Parts: sequence; structure tokens; C-alpha cells
Amino acid sequence: MAEIAAEAGVSVPTVSKVLNGRHDVAPATRERVEELLRARSYLPRRNPPARTARLIDVVFVDLGSAWAMQILAGVEEVAHRAGTGVVVSAVHGRTRTAPDRRWLESLAARRSDGVLLVLSELAADQRARLAQLGIPVVVVDPAGQPDPSVPSVGATNWTGALTATEHLIGLGHRRIAVIGGPGDVLCSRARVDGYRAAMAAAGLQVPAGYERTGDFTSPTGHRETLALLDLPTPPTAIFACADEMARGAYEALYERGLRVPDDLSVVGFDDLEQARWSIPPLTTVRQPLTEMAGLATRMLLTLIAGDSLDSTRLELATPLVVRASTAPVGNISMSEERP
Amino acid sequence: MAEIAAEAGVSVPTVSKVLNGRHDVAPATRERVEELLRARSYLPRRNPPARTARLIDVVFVDLGSAWAMQILAGVEEVAHRAGTGVVVSAVHGRTRTAPDRRWLESLAARRSDGVLLVLSELAADQRARLAQLGIPVVVVDPAGQPDPSVPSVGATNWTGALTATEHLIGLGHRRIAVIGGPGDVLCSRARVDGYRAAMAAAGLQVPAGYERTGDFTSPTGHRETLALLDLPTPPTAIFACADEMARGAYEALYERGLRVPDDLSVVGFDDLEQARWSIPPLTTVRQPLTEMAGLATRMLLTLIAGDSLDSTRLELATPLVVRASTAPVGNISMSEERP
Repeated sequence: MAEIAAEAGVSVPTVSKVLNGRHDVAPATRERVEELLRARSYLPRRNPPARTARLIDVVFVDLGSAWAMQILAGVEEVAHRAGTGVVVSAVHGRTRTAPDRRWLESLAARRSDGVLLVLSELAADQRARLAQLGIPVVVVDPAGQPDPSVPSVGATNWTGALTATEHLIGLGHRRIAVIGGPGDVLCSRARVDGYRAAMAAAGLQVPAGYERTGDFTSPTGHRETLALLDLPTPPTAIFACADEMARGAYEALYERGLRVPDDLSVVGFDDLEQARWSIPPLTTVRQPLTEMAGLATRMLLTLIAGDSLDSTRLELATPLVVRASTAPVGNISMSEERP
Repeated sequence: MAEIAAEAGVSVPTVSKVLNGRHDVAPATRERVEELLRARSYLPRRNPPARTARLIDVVFVDLGSAWAMQILAGVEEVAHRAGTGVVVSAVHGRTRTAPDRRWLESLAARRSDGVLLVLSELAADQRARLAQLGIPVVVVDPAGQPDPSVPSVGATNWTGALTATEHLIGLGHRRIAVIGGPGDVLCSRARVDGYRAAMAAAGLQVPAGYERTGDFTSPTGHRETLALLDLPTPPTAIFACADEMARGAYEALYERGLRVPDDLSVVGFDDLEQARWSIPPLTTVRQPLTEMAGLATRMLLTLIAGDSLDSTRLELATPLVVRASTAPVGNISMSEERP
């Protein structure tokens, strides 16, 4: 996106607006950007052939997840502009990540043109059947677990974590802890690695006990923050690798009578709509979910039109959104609750 | 729902589970409840005739709204069990509440079987065209603005507000303020009326300045809470008629150095997923959005099957969810910030 913005002489947000079919872009600008996008196969080169259905299917593992709505909004916006309807499905059953048999039958019956998967997978026979029907698949992949055989859109997890940690270092923090997600989830690995890289680049050692492991949920953020506060030398800042875990950190600090950011700075990762509810508002790394979903939809429409993609894997940048949960280390008033 | 639960000898949550197609209900129980539901036309009497599409369209005014996902989850769950796909659309354009022309063309082209509207409306010509195509419409109506000519599912706003206020009175509060939404929105009127009814029933006068008006957003909750705190005799409890406004109240109290519920009790209305993020967790009135959407979907499937509805307007109960933002008035330690 930065490349295209530079070439078109516009800002990255403008490219994002064009990709997402927003209307607040001057027509001449839109045309210039769309031409460049088309040249790189991020936009279909021509209108798709007339079909009966004009539908795409989006499959979520969990419609109730915090990010589902942001993703759906991005898909709907782009599909709407292309005159395509969006069929939404959830994977039913607790331990499943693939839709059930009935879904594929319905999909074929309604002659859907393509499939977008959000954190969901397909069984081998489902893939084979879709290939046989000539129905393309694209993955919106916030977990950073790309299957190389399927086109996907992800986010720059490593760089986002690096930026978050650099922000804390820039505020004068030296005792910075990290709460990561499960070690076997790639996006979590990338985020913890980004944290380590920033610490190493600043010549900072990671003290013993400063790397904690949660599972992206609020209770684990709570638990690991309490453990950090109980260390002989607790941190002055915490980078939580998910907003939900940052929320748990807030709770733990509240219980201990500590204030954010006066007593401790907190940075999250995701920029969930919910993060807006935290008091003070959370400084966090934004996963551009709506843009990721919009781009994945454009890729799917390209494939539906019979064109090929230049790249089957794209990662969008993850900017740091500085709000009120981080402050210079000098501001820290060590409260009595700390050892 | 309470009637059916009583007749089937089960709990209301069990009826709700059956309505929403949940699998954790014993088969015999499910059958008994479904029979009663069928007798009242809340469940289709027979399978719909074979169609090509097996699709319903859901139209949201704002896919980004806090409750959209809860509603969509309810629709998808019920539709999935009926083997029906769910096409999601958003109304595009800021001041519009009706989908655009292209939507209706697509709907007809894809031979959608029915339409669910969520806070959205149809233009007169769109209604006429749907009627002509024989496509039924049902409204999921969290705003309490039923159009009598269209079947709809709402929530008991008045009773919910009554219960919330009674909860505060039961905790010993006497100085209870309310922050309502716009006076011309019916659900807001109903909630403020419910508050007044509870106060009157307890023989409590509403002091001057204790009835405030916001617009359901967080900044207005913040503004009106500051105004309440600046009164010569500020309240000991606030009933905010929307969780978003309760969030604004939290912010105002945080700025003034006051703690919830130690210094002031706060009750919200909606039980948004986001309300979970507040610290301490918000006591609030639950709008059963998922159940409302599930029931509306069943009504739509009934109409698609060619059956008629016993009632074109249903309202689901709004239970109070007691969390940690309310406490007995005796616990209140008047802080120095208060006059």
C-alpha cells in the first residue's frame, strides 16, 4: 500500500479508502489509484462475467468474537460496490474450525462465487469439492498462520510489536515486560520476537520473569500482571500482546490500587472497538481488520473474475495508536502497594 | 416465553435455547417446547417448500454498531438450523435508513426468501416491490419503534427500567438520577417512564435536575454526569438508559477522582459485550438481542413457509444483570471532591 501511495502521489489512508470503496475520495484520485491497484492485480481487470448468484460466502469460526464485526464491515463495503451479496456463516460446534457438510451443499445450491475464511479452515474434501466447482477461496488471517496454498491477507505482527516496545523505550521505560499469547500461535511468536528485537536494539536486557505467557484472554492478562507486580523488581511498563490481555492487566492494577499510566504504562495489540471502553483509553497496535478484509474481498473478486494474483500473501501495516495508557517513566510515583 | 416455559414445565432460558437452536437441550424437552412454539406459530408448522435460493437478507443501518454482532449471531444460528443462508447488507450513506436501489435488484436476482430489518426501514416503493415478489419482512426492533404494519420483535424497555430503578431503591438509594436518550425515541421514553414509575411506587420524589437527557452516546453520559455531580445535592446513584452513556458516567467519575460503586452506583441498559470491559463490571439491564434476532428469524421462516403469525408484535423480557457497579447506599464514603 505504501508503494502504491508513493507511486500515485497520495497518502496511504487514501489508498486504503479506495481499496475499501469509500466515497470520500476525489474521482481523479480514485482512478489513478485504481489503475495502479489493477496493474498489480489487487483490483479485478474487468467486470466478472454475468452470473446468476453474485454471492460470496464468509465463514467465521466465531461470529461472537470481538473482531468479527470489523471484518464483516470491510467485506460488505467492498462487495456492495461490486454488486455482490455477502452470505455469512459461523462454524457450529465448539472444537470445530471447519463449516459442516450442510454448508457446502447450500453453497453449491446457491451458486456462490467465492469463499472468504476468517480464522476458519476447510476439510480436505471440502477444498477438493470447491476446486472442482471452480469456487476460489481467500483467507483473512489475523492469526498469522498462512497456509501457503491459499491466498491470504495478514498483518505485520512483528513490526507492530517492535513499534509498541520502541514507544515505551522512547518514554524512558527500561523495565518493560511482555505478556504473549500461546507459543504455538505464529502471530504471538512474531509479537514476542518484535518485543525482544526492540529491547535488544536499545541494549536492554529482558530481566528474568519479564516474559509471561497468556492465551489472549483477559483472565490470563490479569494473572500474569499480578505475577509481574509480585516480582522483586516489578516492571514500569507492560506490553500485552492482545487488547483482551491488556484489559486483564487493567483489572489487576485496579485491584492493587495502582493507576494507569501514573503507576504503570500498558500497551495492547489489536485496537478492538472494545478497547475504547477502557479508562484511560488504551494505547495499542492497530490491526487494520476492516482494510485486511476489504483487500481479501478484492483478491477474491479478482479470482472470481478469472484473473490471477501477483502475490498470494499480503500483510498490512499495524500502526501504533497512542492514547492515554502510556506515560514517561519519570511520571511514575511508586505507590505503597509495591514492594 | 414465560407462558410457554410454564406450560412445558421448563425454565425460560430453556425455551430461549430451543428458539435459538442450541444443542444443549434434551431431545424430549426440545420436542415438547417446539410443539408449543409451533402451536403458537413461533415455529414453522412444516418445512418450507423446496426453493432454489434458501436465503434470507438481513439489513443493518450500521454494521459497526455495538449490537450488530449479537443480532447477527442469533439470526445465523436459527437460519443455519433451517438450512438457510444469511445475506448481510448495510445501509450505505450517512443519513439513510433504507438500503439503496441496487440492493433490491440483487435481492430479486438471488431469489432471497425473506428480509429481516435491523433498525432500518424500507422506502414505500421497496415495500410494494417486496409484496409483489411475495417476499415477507420482519423487523428486529431494539429501538421500540414498531411499525404496526410489519411483524416485529422488541424488548420490554419500560419493565427493564423499572427493575433497574427498583434494584437501586432496594440498595437503600433515595437520590437516584436518570440519564435518558432523545425524548422522541420511543424506547428512551419507555425507559424514563419506567424509572419514574419505580420512584413513584417507592414514594420518592424526583429532585429538580435529576432527569437528564443524552443521546445514547458516551460523551453525553459524561456531560450529564458532570452536571449531576455539580448539583447542590448530587445523586448517590445514576441509571443511564444505555451502556454507552454509563461508560461516559464512568469517565466523568474517574476524572473527579470518584470510585464506582464506593462513591456512586451506576446502572446501564443494553448489556453490550463492551460493558464487560468496564472496571468494575457494569450492572445493567440486558436486551436479549440474540434471542430477539432468533425469534424474528423464526417468525420470518414461518411467513416464508406460508403460515401466519399469531401475533405481529412480540417483546422479550429484559432481565437485570447485577455486577459490581452498584452497592448499598450505606457504603458510600462522601469524598472531598463533593460539595
